[in-house]
Order: sequence, then structure tokens, then C-alpha cells
Amino acid sequence: MKNLLSNRIQNVPESFIRSILKVSTQPDVISFAGGLPSADLFPIEGLENACHKVLQTNGKKALQYSSSEGDSDLRAWISQRYQEKQGLNISPSNILITNGSQQALDLLGKVLLNEGDPIAIENPGYLGAIQSFSLYQPIMHTVAIDENGLDTKQLADVLEEHKPKLLYTVPNFQNPTGISYSQENREAVAQIVSQHDILLVQDDPYGELRFSGEQKSNFYELLPEQTLLLGSFSKVVVPSFRLGWIVAPDWLMKPLVIAKQAADLHTNYFSQQVISQYLQDNALDDHIEKITHFYGKQKQAMMDAISEHFPGDVKVAEPEGGMFLWITLPKGVSAMKLFDKAVQEKVAFVPGKPFYVGDEVQENTMRLSYVTVDEAKISEGIKRLAYCMKD
Amino acid sequence: MKNLLSNRIQNVPESFIRSILKVSTQPDVISFAGGLPSADLFPIEGLENACHKVLQTNGKKALQYSSSEGDSDLRAWISQRYQEKQGLNISPSNILITNGSQQALDLLGKVLLNEGDPIAIENPGYLGAIQSFSLYQPIMHTVAIDENGLDTKQLADVLEEHKPKLLYTVPNFQNPTGISYSQENREAVAQIVSQHDILLVQDDPYGELRFSGEQKSNFYELLPEQTLLLGSFSKVVVPSFRLGWIVAPDWLMKPLVIAKQAADLHTNYFSQQVISQYLQDNALDDHIEKITHFYGKQKQAMMDAISEHFPGDVKVAEPEGGMFLWITLPKGVSAMKLFDKAVQEKVAFVPGKPFYVGDEVQENTMRLSYVTVDEAKISEGIKRLAYCMKD
Repeated sequence: MKNLLSNRIQNVPESFIRSILKVSTQPDVISFAGGLPSADLFPIEGLENACHKVLQTNGKKALQYSSSEGDSDLRAWISQRYQEKQGLNISPSNILITNGSQQALDLLGKVLLNEGDPIAIENPGYLGAIQSFSLYQPIMHTVAIDENGLDTKQLADVLEEHKPKLLYTVPNFQNPTGISYSQENREAVAQIVSQHDILLVQDDPYGELRFSGEQKSNFYELLPEQTLLLGSFSKVVVPSFRLGWIVAPDWLMKPLVIAKQAADLHTNYFSQQVISQYLQDNALDDHIEKITHFYGKQKQAMMDAISEHFPGDVKVAEPEGGMFLWITLPKGVSAMKLFDKAVQEKVAFVPGKPFYVGDEVQENTMRLSYVTVDEAKISEGIKRLAYCMKD
Repeated sequence: MKNLLSNRIQNVPESFIRSILKVSTQPDVISFAGGLPSADLFPIEGLENACHKVLQTNGKKALQYSSSEGDSDLRAWISQRYQEKQGLNISPSNILITNGSQQALDLLGKVLLNEGDPIAIENPGYLGAIQSFSLYQPIMHTVAIDENGLDTKQLADVLEEHKPKLLYTVPNFQNPTGISYSQENREAVAQIVSQHDILLVQDDPYGELRFSGEQKSNFYELLPEQTLLLGSFSKVVVPSFRLGWIVAPDWLMKPLVIAKQAADLHTNYFSQQVISQYLQDNALDDHIEKITHFYGKQKQAMMDAISEHFPGDVKVAEPEGGMFLWITLPKGVSAMKLFDKAVQEKVAFVPGKPFYVGDEVQENTMRLSYVTVDEAKISEGIKRLAYCMKD
């Protein structure tokens, strides 16, 4: 009965990451492949206290059906956080709670994209966004990124020539490259975008995980009417709750709420209440400081091991935050082939290839995560990788 | 920038229910409109114990990202329950955990429906399904239902003429009508469906809430290769967790998992663990017996009040379970007009009209829920409705 399948689902690429994860979760493999936050840092006790409090004081309400928009206290907290941390004025009524920011991508696809509509996306880019959008069968145009951010010449050309409906970006500690757009790059991008009828999506799961350098402008500051913000609690509090949000202008909120309602009525309301209680009773900044201190140390351990063991012609883009390092091997070296060897040596990473859309693939790139394994293992894993590179 | 919206979102009908809910949640209104389970019956203590246990014994795992398919213990429990309660052999590997059964509808739309594909749906039918499917822009063909189930003559014609990809059914205590398909009707429907290349969706949120009569065959028993089962914990344990599932054959599981991953990576894993723990530590049958005992009494209270106060020419379909009564007013009477009067008298319900697809609307029908307000209010509300009918 396979003939009953829709065209869209038959066009989705197999996830290479999924098959990698099968290899990399074997117990004796040192894995730099995944993007899992460190479980040692989860605030188990704080969340347990919050569960208790919510069920004791407000159990009936917390367990009942609720509104598609999301919990009003949680939306107010997010609004206030934008004010405090980034000086942005965002009304709670422009915030929709979603199942992680991943669902925000799906809802955007649903309310914006007809089959064949043009969109623009960073290259290389976040696989989850590529997969999510691809189910709505748009035409994807790519804009290259480097250490400074988007290639503004290419961006201007793509917007001029193809008139994409949206531009997808992760300007802070991007996945997969770990790079951040410079302040100048953001301003140049905003300037170009402002000349077109297009929405800029700033996906920002890692933005608060900065261990060096300075915060740059949020696109919402530069382009308030054209920017959609995606946020998530997955990397700063807890991933399994699947709690994220989207900030959208009034005209887009109503369609998004209808799409949300059709998708799953509303996001788990108990978990919304629990995280809201947790955020009331605990200083999130203190918790984030613990995370960034830890990730910063791990990043340094990986950088040090790389300097010591990797051949001199291997380039590393050093991130100011987030979870990933991006490695560029000498031209002509295939990270896919390196991966096959690495697996034999019991060390795993993600080759760059699956993060590229279209033909402009840099086969000599790879992504390493420094957050999941400890410093001793980081050093040992990098040594093994260096050994594989020697051939 | 509204020109950026997709065609599909511009075609979704406004939800009349939503506007009704605004009226019906005013504190002095007696509302038979909503479909909210009784919050007095939520197992708050049992869930709190489960939260505690999960976080104490397995906190790191329960708070981490998890698999798109869902928690293996929970899938095993569901598989076993099908065996015990309905004698069905369903492997856990054919069960995908979703955000309520609502998300299963969305995922089905995603993996099966191209724009313009034909589908068949009960008339009147569940609004959430109509809304969810309509975002994939199918052509909806309707099959009328009465006290016995689907109109088999019409079903045979629709399947022959339009070759729909799927047939959506709620054979137990249907929403909105409360009716259940008879055993004969199920067998006749299965016989017709077996002759076509079509999937039958059995959505079954209320199936376990039976207070009289006997269990009938699950369509999976009659048509194992063509039946998809949708299930939910919302009506038997807790709605706010948004936990449901879909049972699908091997060839459909892989596309569904890809669609689930693109939609939100996975369902809230903490809540999956909590409900799984709750189900291990508590006898669900005892809890369901409490619910059905309570709902049965409320249903009887409403039936009694109706017999006493409603005019003799108002017909009521008496349900054997679930949450709804379906009222048929004399021909020519508009339930929409009655609604306007009722609101003035501070009593609310849902007119039948929004549940119909297409032109064959029975304007003289209405849905009453007996689960949300207590017996005294049921009696008072029915009196008020009877007063409105007198004109």
C-alpha cells in the first residue's frame, strides 16, 4: 500500500545523523557526534520541587486541557527575559509556546510554504530545519557562511533573484559550525533583508551559552517587523520537556495558533507549569553560568588536544559559545572516509557533508561536539582522530 | 506581509467551538459545551508519586533527549493492554508515541495526503480531525452516521466513486454524537473497506469509558492490514500531558517516524516516563471504573432531566459510554438560534452545524456534554434549555 504515501514524505532525505548515532552510542565509542547537553548539569532537584509545588497547589488546572497559545505565566517570563537580557520589547501575546523550537519550524512551514515556494537557508545549516522545511516542498536556496556570518553578496543575489519567503539563520554559535555572525555582518544582512518582502528567522537555541566574546545585536532589534525569533529551554534547562517558543507579529500569530491547534491542541501544560515554577524559584543565570563554565572548559580541553595532536594543516573555527567545533581538513581530504576509519578506532563525529544543501558541499569538513564526554575522553578521542588523520 | 501566508492556512475554517468556549467559560454559565474530562477525577497523588520516583531513580535519562518513536516501556505497556483488553497482537515496534491522538492525525495528513487527494470522513465528525486533515488540502467526502454506525450504502458508493486514501472513524462513543457502531455495522464496513486500497483510521479516545452495553470488535481485528489505531491517555488518565499513540504497519512506521522527528523530535519524554511509572504502580482499570461510574451517573442525570423537561418531540441518542449526548430537535428548528437564546439564559452547548462537512447539515442537532458539571447543575441547565425550547 506504499502507493498511498504522500509526495512530500517520499522526498525527505534519509537522516545520516540517525545512522551515525547508532554507531556512536555503542558503549566503548568516544562520541563527539551528538548534540546532547550534559546530563550531569540537569537541575533534577529544582525540577522535582517544581513538580511537587505545581501538583500540590494547582493540580487540577495543571493536569487539564489548556490553551493552544501556552501558559500565560511562562509567556510573560519569556517576554521579561527578552527585555532584561537583550533590551527587546516583546509582548507575551506575540509568543506562542511550542514543542521545542523544532515544532516552531514545522508550524512556520505549515503557515508559510506552498509547494515550490523559494526559501533561503545558511549553508552548511541545521539539519532539523532542512528536514522540517523540506516536508513542505519548498525550493531551497543557500547562502554560504564563514567565520563572519552570511556571505552578504550571495545573500543579496539570492534575495534579488529568487524572492524567498523566509531566510533561516542561527546567528549565535551556529549548528553545525559554532560560528557567530559579527556585528557588522548582522547589520549588513538586516540592511539587505529590509529591502525585500521576506521574513528572517533567528533560531537561537544556544544564544545564552556564551563563554567568551560579547553579545551582538538580535535581528529583532535591527528588523523588528521582519524577524521571527525561535527560542528553547532545551539547552539551558531541560531537553526532554520539549519546550520552546516562537515570537511572531500579530498577523502571523493567529495562523500559527490555528496550525498549533491542528497539530496537537497545545504543548504539554503540566511541563509548562513546572518549568514556569522552576524559573520563579531558581536563578536561571546562576544555572547558565554553571553550564557555560563547564562547556567552556571542555571546549578548551578539545582545542588544546587538537593543537597538540592534529596535523598543522587542519583548521579549527574556535567558538565563543554553544556546543560545537568545526574542523576543516586540507583540501581533497574526505571527512566521510575519515569517519569510516574513526569508527574502527572507536571515535565518532559528524562529517560536514549532511549539513550542506545542494551541490556546494565541502567534503573536507567535520563537526565535533565537546559537551557530552569528559576531558579525559576528549583528549583520548582527539588522539585517536589524529591517528586516523595520519594516513 | 500577509501575502506570505500559505494557501493551506488560508483555507482552514474558523473554529466555531473556540468562540463558543469563550462564552461558555464565563463563571455563571452552565456549560454543556466543552469536552473537558472531570478534573475531580485526575489522579494527582499517583502522578506526583510517579514524578518523584522517575526523577529520583532515573532523573538524568528522563530529562535528556530521547528517541522519536517514544519510550520503550510505555510502548510495551500499550501493546500488552491491546492484548489483554481486546485480544489484539500488536508489537511495540508498531506503536509511535504522539502528542495526544491529535498529533497522530497531523502526522497521517503529512505522510499520506497530497493536495486534492480524496479522503472519507464520518458526517457529522470530530472537528479536530476535520481541521487537522484540512491543512493538507484533501477533498473530503462524507459518509453519514446514524445509531447503527456508518451508512454502508453511501460508504460503498464513496469508496467506489472517489477512491479515498483513508476513512476516518470514531466507532466507540463518537464525537459529537455519542453513538457506537453496531457489531453488524463494523463487519459490513470492514467487508466494504477490504475491497479497496484504503486505510481505515479508528480513533478511539473514549473506547475504555463504557458504562453499559458490550464491547464490539476493533476494526484491527476485522481488517488488520488496513487499520490504523489511534489512542490517547487524555480521557483515562490526564489530558495536559498530551500523550497518545498511533498503531501502524511496518511500511508506514518509518515515514511516520521521519514526520514525527521533523515535527518536534519526540514527545515530552519526562511525561512518558511519569505516565509509564504511574501505570506500573496503579491499576488503571480501577481508575477507569471510577470515571465510568461517575460519568454514567451524570449521563443518567441528564437523561432524566431531559425526559422530565424537554418537549416530547425532541429525540436523544442514549450513549453506552464516552462524554456526549446528541439531541435532535424537531425538523425546521435551528440549534444555532437556540444557542443564541440559551446564552442569554446562561446555559451553553454546541450546535450540530460545525460538526458537519459540506452541505448536508442537520441544523436541528446539538451536542451536550455531561461530564464537566455536577448533577444539580445538569438538572438546572436542562431546565433552562427546556425553557428556551418552549418558544
